[in-house]
Amino acid sequence: MTTLSDLNSSSDIGFVDLLHGIYEHSPWIAQRAAAARPFESITALKRALQHVLAQASPAEQLGLIRAHPELAGKAAIAGQLTAESTREQAKSGLNLCNPEEFSTLQRLNQDYNAKFGFPFIVCVRRHTRDSILRQFERRLRHDASAEFATALQEIFYITRLRVAAKVTGEGMPKVNGRLSTHVLDTHAGRPAAGVAVELFEYAGEQAHRIVRTVTNADGRTDQPLIGDRPLPIGRYELRFAMGDHFRRRDIEAGDPPFLDIVPLRFSIAEPEGHYHVPLLCSPWSYSTYRGS
Amino acid sequence: MTTLSDLNSSSDIGFVDLLHGIYEHSPWIAQRAAAARPFESITALKRALQHVLAQASPAEQLGLIRAHPELAGKAAIAGQLTAESTREQAKSGLNLCNPEEFSTLQRLNQDYNAKFGFPFIVCVRRHTRDSILRQFERRLRHDASAEFATALQEIFYITRLRVAAKVTGEGMPKVNGRLSTHVLDTHAGRPAAGVAVELFEYAGEQAHRIVRTVTNADGRTDQPLIGDRPLPIGRYELRFAMGDHFRRRDIEAGDPPFLDIVPLRFSIAEPEGHYHVPLLCSPWSYSTYRGS
Amino acid sequence: MTTLSDLNSSSDIGFVDLLHGIYEHSPWIAQRAAAARPFESITALKRALQHVLAQASPAEQLGLIRAHPELAGKAAIAGQLTAESTREQAKSGLNLCNPEEFSTLQRLNQDYNAKFGFPFIVCVRRHTRDSILRQFERRLRHDASAEFATALQEIFYITRLRVAAKVTGEGMPKVNGRLSTHVLDTHAGRPAAGVAVELFEYAGEQAHRIVRTVTNADGRTDQPLIGDRPLPIGRYELRFAMGDHFRRRDIEAGDPPFLDIVPLRFSIAEPEGHYHVPLLCSPWSYSTYRGS
Amino acid sequence: MTTLSDLNSSSDIGFVDLLHGIYEHSPWIAQRAAAARPFESITALKRALQHVLAQASPAEQLGLIRAHPELAGKAAIAGQLTAESTREQAKSGLNLCNPEEFSTLQRLNQDYNAKFGFPFIVCVRRHTRDSILRQFERRLRHDASAEFATALQEIFYITRLRVAAKVTGEGMPKVNGRLSTHVLDTHAGRPAAGVAVELFEYAGEQAHRIVRTVTNADGRTDQPLIGDRPLPIGRYELRFAMGDHFRRRDIEAGDPPFLDIVPLRFSIAEPEGHYHVPLLCSPWSYSTYRGS
Repeated sequence: MTTLSDLNSSSDIGFVDLLHGIYEHSPWIAQRAAAARPFESITALKRALQHVLAQASPAEQLGLIRAHPELAGKAAIAGQLTAESTREQAKSGLNLCNPEEFSTLQRLNQDYNAKFGFPFIVCVRRHTRDSILRQFERRLRHDASAEFATALQEIFYITRLRVAAKVTGEGMPKVNGRLSTHVLDTHAGRPAAGVAVELFEYAGEQAHRIVRTVTNADGRTDQPLIGDRPLPIGRYELRFAMGDHFRRRDIEAGDPPFLDIVPLRFSIAEPEGHYHVPLLCSPWSYSTYRGS
Repeated sequence: MTTLSDLNSSSDIGFVDLLHGIYEHSPWIAQRAAAARPFESITALKRALQHVLAQASPAEQLGLIRAHPELAGKAAIAGQLTAESTREQAKSGLNLCNPEEFSTLQRLNQDYNAKFGFPFIVCVRRHTRDSILRQFERRLRHDASAEFATALQEIFYITRLRVAAKVTGEGMPKVNGRLSTHVLDTHAGRPAAGVAVELFEYAGEQAHRIVRTVTNADGRTDQPLIGDRPLPIGRYELRFAMGDHFRRRDIEAGDPPFLDIVPLRFSIAEPEGHYHVPLLCSPWSYSTYRGS
Repeated sequence: MTTLSDLNSSSDIGFVDLLHGIYEHSPWIAQRAAAARPFESITALKRALQHVLAQASPAEQLGLIRAHPELAGKAAIAGQLTAESTREQAKSGLNLCNPEEFSTLQRLNQDYNAKFGFPFIVCVRRHTRDSILRQFERRLRHDASAEFATALQEIFYITRLRVAAKVTGEGMPKVNGRLSTHVLDTHAGRPAAGVAVELFEYAGEQAHRIVRTVTNADGRTDQPLIGDRPLPIGRYELRFAMGDHFRRRDIEAGDPPFLDIVPLRFSIAEPEGHYHVPLLCSPWSYSTYRGS
Repeated sequence: MTTLSDLNSSSDIGFVDLLHGIYEHSPWIAQRAAAARPFESITALKRALQHVLAQASPAEQLGLIRAHPELAGKAAIAGQLTAESTREQAKSGLNLCNPEEFSTLQRLNQDYNAKFGFPFIVCVRRHTRDSILRQFERRLRHDASAEFATALQEIFYITRLRVAAKVTGEGMPKVNGRLSTHVLDTHAGRPAAGVAVELFEYAGEQAHRIVRTVTNADGRTDQPLIGDRPLPIGRYELRFAMGDHFRRRDIEAGDPPFLDIVPLRFSIAEPEGHYHVPLLCSPWSYSTYRGS
């Protein structure tokens, strides 16, 4: 990791070098920001970079936008992406698309480029695969100036995460979210321990399991279900093995029991937010809510 | 429909004729019960028939059990079932089994016959396809005397439904159940009208939609989700289009909204019971319970 | 009770006679409406009477307003009210005011008369004592034209109830509300029967018990908590003896039990509405909502 | 505060001196425990003291019991209690008893002494005034040997708290509980900040306010409602000004609003436990549960 004082104390060339890759193929942004040093915080650094971009000419801004690769495009297939783009596209699960989804993406890429003259840019780490496809289709209906602004906004999200991954120090902007749960047994009046919990992410009508864990003595999970990263925008389902829990407590609730696997289906819209999705459950009732 | 007074006033032969098909290939039960006439109620008729069966010799009881066809067995495939069995097996959805499920059923039939010396009998109208398979596997582990008693109990359920379908009059035993729902919008403090509701039945991990409806002005459905028949034992899921509901009310709840399709998964264990499974829902919370 | 056909078939004088007391000391309203007969429904009768009032001169309207007695005023104390006003003021519980409340009422009457030149009119049957006092203080701050309109609106409510009490027939407007409850035991998954329920009405900080009942086998009360009358606007509290209920079921929930008397406090704002205020309760949790 | 090493390193006489007041007028317990030094933890010290008491003769145990003052008895009125008893009885609110309650206590003291030959002992800091009276009446119905054991158990609670107040160091037994709350606005899907919260303690039918606070940005209170002390066994009510909260959010929910002050009534039975009593609330619904 680079520290803030590394960035503040190095030569201009060194500074640009240390920030290599923050903006896709566009060292000029760091070059122009170098003079604003020293920075008191990472937020101040981030603001200086944004300021350079905001003051740049429309042609320069367009150049930056065009420097980005297509999503799951030919460059990705040919292995010609920057290291940063490769990692980010992989983490989004886009590399797991089936052939049909790939061809949808290719068609969307083509239509988008034809309409706007630049590639579709989205901060993939803030989205599920499902959400990327929805965004793509929705943004294709925008007009050019709205899309130009949206592309810059997405670059803002991308670089904020790249800075957070590369630079360490005071005043880090909030880039991560947290998804957590809590299981209360309202029949016993205490946390439900040892309950198997699964988290699924939806892609279309398919639910893919992404987490499998068990509640601890306090009815929580030892680790957040998602943490230390942005929460990908998308649709999710939590499933709790409450039938097994009440069976272990020897409670009669019908055969089969009224409640067995309890699903909670919800969406995440704020990648940097905290989503607490608890389950309050008796053998005959349950409730959930967005908590904090 | 036959009336109770038809049964009470006809000759012995006529009585047996009118009850044809109530007990599978076993007119002797009605023959012996004829003398107990007149019956004051259908319940009294039903009790008289049961009494005959209970007083019959074990060999006669075994004969009745053996008179039943195999589930989805060769007779079903060859079209050789009684009219009653054909209708009942069809309504259970057993005729929709895929080849793998059919071969599972054939294996279970074979194992069961080999172990007990009589066919597996279950009142199929009181079960989902899923539940029939579970019952089959579970009952294979019983001992012979327990299974003999269970077979007679299932014949009791079968004949009770056949009587209810054939005879009309006072004192009908309760043979039907009811599944209902109710959607309350706890954000607005009133029933949620116009909400699309779907009911799915689970077979293994697959959910099959069996009802599609919309809530009325009182947040209920005009017809019970299941009514006028026994509730098939099994696993179900209700799905409510709450995202659409709140969108119609112009409520902001994130993009995508925190709650969109709300699933309630539950099981039915009492075919003659009333299951009321309501949804209380705001854009950020929901709860359910077995109501009445 | 007078029937609609009595009203339609009688002479003009007979018609006015039959409607005696509907409008306080103001037979002219019925006199002018008589020509509009026959009426198809009670709603049509009501509309004709309102139409006469709406077409009357401001001086006539003021005359009607001034024909009403003060609330709990000197006339009430001296026993000089019309039969209708006497009954209505008694049912509101105004006659139970303590000396302090009486003197507050006298002061409000005086201030109101001084400001507007006519007595404060409220349809007392649609309010609790508490709500009457709040209305009084709030309406004192209105301007004269708003109060004139409000007085006529309250006369509308008063006469609607008087018509409903006096005339029977088709097309009766809705004048009554309903308050009901339902107790579900979410620990057992069934209605909670035999639970003692009390309903209190608040007057200031004091809660006065107005109903004492017990839930039936379906967890409901045999009679609505309030029915067959308008629901008086005001603040209420339901109290459920859930501790006793769970004790009868031999459930351990601490000593003293976590939940004993469960209070639900709520207000009624729509006298003609249906308020369903259920309790879903385990020994360790409960919830309520405005249902339907 | 005395440290564990002070206790371990002092002379026998010093040790007894440092523990003065832990057992009411009974230095012999510390004297006999001194030889067991050094103690590795406060728990070990506590255990050694208990061991001495358990090994003591019945006459010595009775002596210890009799060394305790009556509750709110003549000694209290005359100011002749030990410093510890004075403080403890004051904190229980017993000094606030009205004349009627005092005379009830005197009668109970007399009856108890007459029946058992020793004073009624209860660890007052673990009870509300209400609970003390209930305990008293209930324990009067015990037999002598059960009461002898209960008295020693209460002395155990008393001395555990006195040790915790006097000695500091490793291995402190858990003597404090915690009562907390959390207000979620399920209409907005976020914590309800700025909500006025009051906590009442019940004595008979009277509710006495003991805490008045406001929720912070996370919907919690900055301090636990009760913390850093045992939770007194008894009945409580939390009241939340939800009407004001929704009014600030400009939400229409009737006039008066369906929910205004929301009361949650519950009991505490485990003085050393954690009671989390949250409120999930929309303008038309609310729920609570014992959480963690």
